Amino acid sequence: MARTASLSGFPEWLPEERLVELHVLDTLRRVFELHGFASIETRAVETVGQLLRKGEIDKEVYGLSRLQEDEGEAKGKGDHHALALHFDLTVPFARYVVENAGYLSFPFRRYQIQKVWRGERPQEGRAREFTQADIDVVGDGELPFRYDVEIALVIAEALSALPIPDFRLRINNRKLAEGFYRGIGLEDTAGVLRSIDKLEKIGPAKVAELLKAELGATDEQAQKALQLAGIRTEDTSFVAQVRALGVSNDLLEEGLNELEQVIDAAVQRAPGKVLADLSIARGLDYYTGTVVETVLVGHEQLGSICSGGRYDALASKGNRKFPGVGLSIGVTRLVSRILSQDLAKASRSVPTAVLVALTHDDSWGAAQDVAAQLRSRGIPTEVAAKAEKFGKQIKFADRRGIPYVWFTDDDGTHQVKDIRSGEQVVAAPETWMPPAGDLAVQVATADAVAGAVNA
Amino acid sequence: MARTASLSGFPEWLPEERLVELHVLDTLRRVFELHGFASIETRAVETVGQLLRKGEIDKEVYGLSRLQEDEGEAKGKGDHHALALHFDLTVPFARYVVENAGYLSFPFRRYQIQKVWRGERPQEGRAREFTQADIDVVGDGELPFRYDVEIALVIAEALSALPIPDFRLRINNRKLAEGFYRGIGLEDTAGVLRSIDKLEKIGPAKVAELLKAELGATDEQAQKALQLAGIRTEDTSFVAQVRALGVSNDLLEEGLNELEQVIDAAVQRAPGKVLADLSIARGLDYYTGTVVETVLVGHEQLGSICSGGRYDALASKGNRKFPGVGLSIGVTRLVSRILSQDLAKASRSVPTAVLVALTHDDSWGAAQDVAAQLRSRGIPTEVAAKAEKFGKQIKFADRRGIPYVWFTDDDGTHQVKDIRSGEQVVAAPETWMPPAGDLAVQVATADAVAGAVNA
Repeated sequence: MARTASLSGFPEWLPEERLVELHVLDTLRRVFELHGFASIETRAVETVGQLLRKGEIDKEVYGLSRLQEDEGEAKGKGDHHALALHFDLTVPFARYVVENAGYLSFPFRRYQIQKVWRGERPQEGRAREFTQADIDVVGDGELPFRYDVEIALVIAEALSALPIPDFRLRINNRKLAEGFYRGIGLEDTAGVLRSIDKLEKIGPAKVAELLKAELGATDEQAQKALQLAGIRTEDTSFVAQVRALGVSNDLLEEGLNELEQVIDAAVQRAPGKVLADLSIARGLDYYTGTVVETVLVGHEQLGSICSGGRYDALASKGNRKFPGVGLSIGVTRLVSRILSQDLAKASRSVPTAVLVALTHDDSWGAAQDVAAQLRSRGIPTEVAAKAEKFGKQIKFADRRGIPYVWFTDDDGTHQVKDIRSGEQVVAAPETWMPPAGDLAVQVATADAVAGAVNA
Repeated sequence: MARTASLSGFPEWLPEERLVELHVLDTLRRVFELHGFASIETRAVETVGQLLRKGEIDKEVYGLSRLQEDEGEAKGKGDHHALALHFDLTVPFARYVVENAGYLSFPFRRYQIQKVWRGERPQEGRAREFTQADIDVVGDGELPFRYDVEIALVIAEALSALPIPDFRLRINNRKLAEGFYRGIGLEDTAGVLRSIDKLEKIGPAKVAELLKAELGATDEQAQKALQLAGIRTEDTSFVAQVRALGVSNDLLEEGLNELEQVIDAAVQRAPGKVLADLSIARGLDYYTGTVVETVLVGHEQLGSICSGGRYDALASKGNRKFPGVGLSIGVTRLVSRILSQDLAKASRSVPTAVLVALTHDDSWGAAQDVAAQLRSRGIPTEVAAKAEKFGKQIKFADRRGIPYVWFTDDDGTHQVKDIRSGEQVVAAPETWMPPAGDLAVQVATADAVAGAVNA
């Protein structure tokens, strides 16, 4: 990254950096649409009441007020009709589903790629304005478990298509964990989950203390809970490991069965990308089954780059429930890391493949004709604004990163020069094409770029 | 439009409506990139000081504050370091250019497609949250006038590619108008422009009164100013009409020459799309030459759907000036009109072209294999979640608007059914392709749709 943001927590990209971000967004969109997810956007703004429905999170929310308010406009901070910026895409999506249930057909599959805002203290991997890319499937009344499996596979495919390091989806199941805690006699399962969620931060000894001090767990209960959280397998062998702990509970069985289905499918269809990790808890309390976090291998300290899970009752309308399962990719976190560590880069900084040079100042119209012919065949083309010396026009193209310059002689002969190699050939505007690698901007991982240079 | 927004002024689209918006956005992006414009985004948030730099517009601005502010955090409304949502993309772009001047190469061509917010009273064609699509070319120190011509042609090409009614760019030039006013002895040219700007709203008689009452114009001066504003030509004949008014002024000559270049190029390269309209003033005071407004023919009451012009000093850094020329398309205004009047529609409401049906509940894996093969060739495909009766699975596809259902017999034979025609054929997952019109969602004007049905 060349610069620091002029406003802390609000990153902005240079054009060549934005091309990397665009590549990430286009790739995600393509994969999501290939899997039948429809695009929606929700407004950036929710009522404060809507955002605080789930409690907890008010600290991070940006409230809105018009700088010059009308007399009598209600805008108290405690006012639940006041407006605020959304802090994720799940809460707005839940509202959207309820409001539009009569116009949607279920199971409703949607992707949503938008900015969200949180007033947290900015740090690496955590911005105040950032882009999320979410997919969810939502049912009306019920939603087959199979969608949990499918969502994990779609995300593994989407992440595999990005110019990022290897990654691992770490998957657990709330039913499995809650059933297990009940089975060993710990009834405040939310409390246990909250403590287990701190495992990576404070270590097992302190978690054991927490479980004993705050939840009244015995030594043996604390140890069992920690043993469960220590299970991490690349295949379905976690099932045997859990059973070996000798705990019996119906909800545990249901969770084991669900997680086994996810891992079993992933071993076949996304080998090496998925782990059963029984320490994963997820902070927010609306998850009811599958829970997922994702790390970049070698970048674990960055935190999760894709999280989510199954929620059986995030949205409801009277008696009508809309269960869902979804995952959210932290696009800005990913792109920041790609840029700060040069993990991938764009092949040039402008879309333009060809600059049509001007021979005379009054040949601008003829040059526009050449450009129009090139564009009609999908070749991004600019026309020089002034008939400067060719050397200057070539320098102009070079400075902007444009690979080809087009010349038209007074006798109507066209030539095109690859200004990187200096090679110049006679060409016709109706037929000439640059190599595929030059037609559009390419974004490739640093490895691939190095490989191409060495090849 | 099926519904009204649940929050007035904050429209949200249903999935099939969003497809129309996406088509508009994709089309604009494609045209902009073909002309060598690079994508950037700026943060949604500016400091209040930055936004108020140009005065006037504070009434419409949404200020931000964290719902739970830290002790001592500065957030007074008068505080110029406080944050607010941007109300257009020009002011943020000017800041971006100044901040990043060292990393950009000039003339810098960028497009920017983002949401903006204004706290105005919502009405048809005017939302509180809406999307703009801007293109600008910005120079370092100077910017050849030719870019004024080019920007108008790019926008005419972009709008021509959209599923919208015919449109007219109405173009004027501030130098022409200001030079003329000076030439007839009216020195408060900004005041005259403000009055002329009201022409369409209050009519010529009232504008004449304004000019006399507020600017001390004589009858004759007011009549001359109105005669100028009455000139509207589809070619460069406006030049002779202005000259016939017998006013002489250097700035006027410069403006006449500039506008003549724009109209002359447009007559050749965008015939019928552009007018010289000498009544166009544009409210904001930073324009210094070309000014543009755009109307949809037959929808003039909607207001301008694309506006902008030349500004010689929007951005500066010490003595360094960054002149620019740009136009901004009101995407939400356009899309709202397309949807509310059924001017165009999507061929289906989901990206999915094929639903792979399940023969047995345990054939989900095999069905996913079929789906993966179809997707690898770019065919958006979903897999059914349950092995219900085929009739039910077909109904499911029908309800979601998916045109094809894929069946795999127990003997491994594949068949695909077009559920609109009922036609069913034997097919192979490695080779079958739907017709191009079914592969991706098509968005077409209502006329084109009607034509296709009748054909």
